[in-house]
Amino acid sequence: MKTTPRILIIGAGFGGLFAARTLANKPVEVLLIDRSNFHTFTPLLYQVATCGLDPSEIAYPVRTIFRKVRNIRVLMGEVTAVAPAQQCVTIQTPSGVRQERYDYLILATGSTPTYFGRDALSAHAWELNSLEDAVALRNHILSQFEQAVWSENADEIAAMTTIVVVGGGPTGLETAGAIYELYNHVLAREYSQRSLHARVVLVEMQPYLLGAYPPDLRQAAARQLKSLGVDVRLGSPVAEASAQGVHLADGTHIPARTLVWAAGVRGSPLAELLGVPLARGQRLPVSPAMRVVGFSNIYAVGDMTYLEDEKGNPYPMLIPVAQQQGILAAKNILAELNGREPQPFRYHDRGIMATIGRSRAVAWLYNRVPLRGYAAWLAWLLLHLVTLLGFRNRLSVFLSWVWNYFTYDRSVRIILRQPPS
Amino acid sequence: MKTTPRILIIGAGFGGLFAARTLANKPVEVLLIDRSNFHTFTPLLYQVATCGLDPSEIAYPVRTIFRKVRNIRVLMGEVTAVAPAQQCVTIQTPSGVRQERYDYLILATGSTPTYFGRDALSAHAWELNSLEDAVALRNHILSQFEQAVWSENADEIAAMTTIVVVGGGPTGLETAGAIYELYNHVLAREYSQRSLHARVVLVEMQPYLLGAYPPDLRQAAARQLKSLGVDVRLGSPVAEASAQGVHLADGTHIPARTLVWAAGVRGSPLAELLGVPLARGQRLPVSPAMRVVGFSNIYAVGDMTYLEDEKGNPYPMLIPVAQQQGILAAKNILAELNGREPQPFRYHDRGIMATIGRSRAVAWLYNRVPLRGYAAWLAWLLLHLVTLLGFRNRLSVFLSWVWNYFTYDRSVRIILRQPPS
Repeated sequence: MKTTPRILIIGAGFGGLFAARTLANKPVEVLLIDRSNFHTFTPLLYQVATCGLDPSEIAYPVRTIFRKVRNIRVLMGEVTAVAPAQQCVTIQTPSGVRQERYDYLILATGSTPTYFGRDALSAHAWELNSLEDAVALRNHILSQFEQAVWSENADEIAAMTTIVVVGGGPTGLETAGAIYELYNHVLAREYSQRSLHARVVLVEMQPYLLGAYPPDLRQAAARQLKSLGVDVRLGSPVAEASAQGVHLADGTHIPARTLVWAAGVRGSPLAELLGVPLARGQRLPVSPAMRVVGFSNIYAVGDMTYLEDEKGNPYPMLIPVAQQQGILAAKNILAELNGREPQPFRYHDRGIMATIGRSRAVAWLYNRVPLRGYAAWLAWLLLHLVTLLGFRNRLSVFLSWVWNYFTYDRSVRIILRQPPS
Repeated sequence: MKTTPRILIIGAGFGGLFAARTLANKPVEVLLIDRSNFHTFTPLLYQVATCGLDPSEIAYPVRTIFRKVRNIRVLMGEVTAVAPAQQCVTIQTPSGVRQERYDYLILATGSTPTYFGRDALSAHAWELNSLEDAVALRNHILSQFEQAVWSENADEIAAMTTIVVVGGGPTGLETAGAIYELYNHVLAREYSQRSLHARVVLVEMQPYLLGAYPPDLRQAAARQLKSLGVDVRLGSPVAEASAQGVHLADGTHIPARTLVWAAGVRGSPLAELLGVPLARGQRLPVSPAMRVVGFSNIYAVGDMTYLEDEKGNPYPMLIPVAQQQGILAAKNILAELNGREPQPFRYHDRGIMATIGRSRAVAWLYNRVPLRGYAAWLAWLLLHLVTLLGFRNRLSVFLSWVWNYFTYDRSVRIILRQPPS
């Protein structure tokens, strides 16, 4: 009697989740491992950080997703070692260390922020990589305002109400726009006994925003961001940061108590556990069939992988890429089990979009249709609603957005301290 | 020219909030001080702990409440000293220590759990005194289940899926009922690959539950709790606790990784700062005009105070008492400023109620109307909805309850780790 093949999937982000879905109710045994007990809808992390949504609105328990699936089990823990020779991974769980054997392994742990060698910056930077990061940033922003309203020192007040967002990609733009609106539509009303003029500065080392978009959309994004009131600084990277402010390479000093790092990401540290040479951005080189180069039964998908398209350009670190690669890795494992040929990755690119704030956005669909302003913003809202997991989360986010839109309110303005452990 | 009298209110719970509301737009200057930037609707903390509601649904930013009021300012910080001779309080704020002068002081910092001298129990107990407590307990409960599903040891599994709730008052009953439903309606479906039989034990040292209710309602509550499936242990207090379980004084040992302490509260530690002899339960003795005994310009209201009614019974530690006392303290200060006589406290008692779970509750209205079962449960739902602050919170809680009721779901099942600081 043949034993059922055992597939371990590490990471319940978009890549891992779509791989697991593809393997649901197939004649394999699946173990899905993640540090958290939930899947995070990362595109909306910035809305949690800026008081627009509750953490649970963009988090969905992994167990709930696979509640009715008999061949998928879920384990909460962090993978600390992979032993390809023994076909075994080591996992640190809340109740101790476990070893789990695999026949096939799918790595899907995504990306982590990179400081491009200037790691000292990280000590003074807030990130938006996890739900915990978003809650921490929310606490920090609100706490700065609570302090600013009582300070007697004008310089200190200015630093407490200035936020510097580094990175001119979609996350940077979305975060800068949302913080500006939080400051100047919502918080301004509540600190009216002392007028606090909040300032949001977006810093990008390139001379333009949104490098992945065509030039006219880049300019539209910059115009919309400026029309909102964000101070856009192009063409100079951050040189140094401290608790008091940010120095740009061009000599500018911006006194600010809040620095949000959205300048770039690299492959997840898990990529290093395999001991293979990594590609650009510390990403794992994979074959078009999504196998990690050098291994026959280890697959990797999503942000942590490096794969070039027919023109020699690496596939971008985007959610649709991760989803499609996750599905393909799962299908290729099933193909091998059935004696069929694996298929190479082909990206079905439906486009990219970024929102900048209330009624402001840009979109570049199917590599030919540009959208901007209100139309792009509506498209963004709709897409994010339909791709959010779970009917209840969709309904809840929809109602929150309607509420925030019409009332100019942000509902989740609570400073929730660290729970005692 | 007379200066405007300055009133400091410490605590933005029900007592402090209603005092501040009474002073809104009056010819006084008010400073409202709280550790958090939000008011907590404490009666629903247990629903946050049991995954039914999001923290922000029962928290309302203090600044939002007084957004349009010109004479009330808000300061986030913890009072560490009161100097009656100097009419000054010391506050630890996120940006350092402040001193604030007062003409009148209203203390309203509520209560804190008491272990009746057995303080060693606290090291192994979870409390439900703050929003942070509730989130910590939610994380713990979910984490125990994540571990139990992977354990190989039957005793360990039993301890991980057993929860002991100590205290037969409303909080104990509500928490026990809600946890039982979470375990056996919601989580059971998600851990179906291994059948986990969760056990909820309610421990009360008195031979009956709900001491404040007439005997037939006490029995109705016990019947409803047992019909739900909760294991009710009356007549024996907790003797000892460890990380592995709970020992009752009658010799029973209950292996359990989770002990929730809802056995009783005492006056807030702030009461000790005045250096006056405290009454029973470490509560501040106050006059019927709500002045702290021994001081002419220091008032105290709510759970932290001790005041007897005409029959010599102390007023109970209940939200309506705190609200009515807060209003009276504020009115009495205004009366003094206008040369009028202060009024004594008279409690308008509309009754008490406790819910036990889905369609289960008891209520004792106007000291004569008993309600039980479905009618009491509907009354409980309605009362809590209308007393919740903020239209958005009311709508959101209402929708969450409708959702949870019809789907037998609990939406907020995420283990949100401590945010990095």
